[in-house]
Amino acid sequence: MGCIFCSIVKGEIPSEKVGETEKSMAFLDLFPLNKGHVLVISKKHYERLDEIPPDILQDMTLLSRRIALATIKAFNPDGYHILMNNGKTAGQEISHAHFHIIPRFEDDGVVFGWRHLEYADEELKSYGDRLRTASQD
Amino acid sequence: MGCIFCSIVKGEIPSEKVGETEKSMAFLDLFPLNKGHVLVISKKHYERLDEIPPDILQDMTLLSRRIALATIKAFNPDGYHILMNNGKTAGQEISHAHFHIIPRFEDDGVVFGWRHLEYADEELKSYGDRLRTASQD
Repeated sequence: MGCIFCSIVKGEIPSEKVGETEKSMAFLDLFPLNKGHVLVISKKHYERLDEIPPDILQDMTLLSRRIALATIKAFNPDGYHILMNNGKTAGQEISHAHFHIIPRFEDDGVVFGWRHLEYADEELKSYGDRLRTASQD
Repeated sequence: MGCIFCSIVKGEIPSEKVGETEKSMAFLDLFPLNKGHVLVISKKHYERLDEIPPDILQDMTLLSRRIALATIKAFNPDGYHILMNNGKTAGQEISHAHFHIIPRFEDDGVVFGWRHLEYADEELKSYGDRLRTASQD
């Protein structure tokens, strides 16, 4: 089966488009977390953020910023998220990388199960070492 | 009281730094959602994504992408989020804009309370109209 977001880019499936650049496209999520929830995708298919070439990712970021500004003007939310879920385990439902721009309102009933773990002695540095080493490869 | 992230940038407060550019900085969140959770900030203070100048936001995005690649190499997660909470209502705890890069693992116990609302007839187009109008101002 083809990619639903690629079909939206091609115009084979209709969408409520709210922004566009040469490389990126923004449209309303049909089943939003809150109404006004927008998705920003690259027109070319990439599955996860780390696979998106830097120039295309930067283009998506600027379009997302424009959508954030429009969201503030249009809906006057109390806050908003910009979020990309990468991988099914992280809640990615369509395997074409997409930023969610989600307006939030007091008492909207959305609950993110945030939590705060703690590092044991030396564990923090060990995690830092692993990331620094991985960055150098 | 001063901004804790500005103090980290100045080196007045220690941090487990894992990446840096001229404009941006990445360090481990001390109280992570999952261990290995990284924060990416601009060195200059901005409160929300929409206030960050485009060039600085693009720099933060590229550093975040590098952190995502390092996270995959270092921790081999099953997925990951990149997320910015803007405003207290959206869960922003420190008022210096920051991307969270959060590794996810099967059975890590993290629950985002995702939900899917639906639009009534014509409502979808109305929300699209409001965003398109706001984009043109």
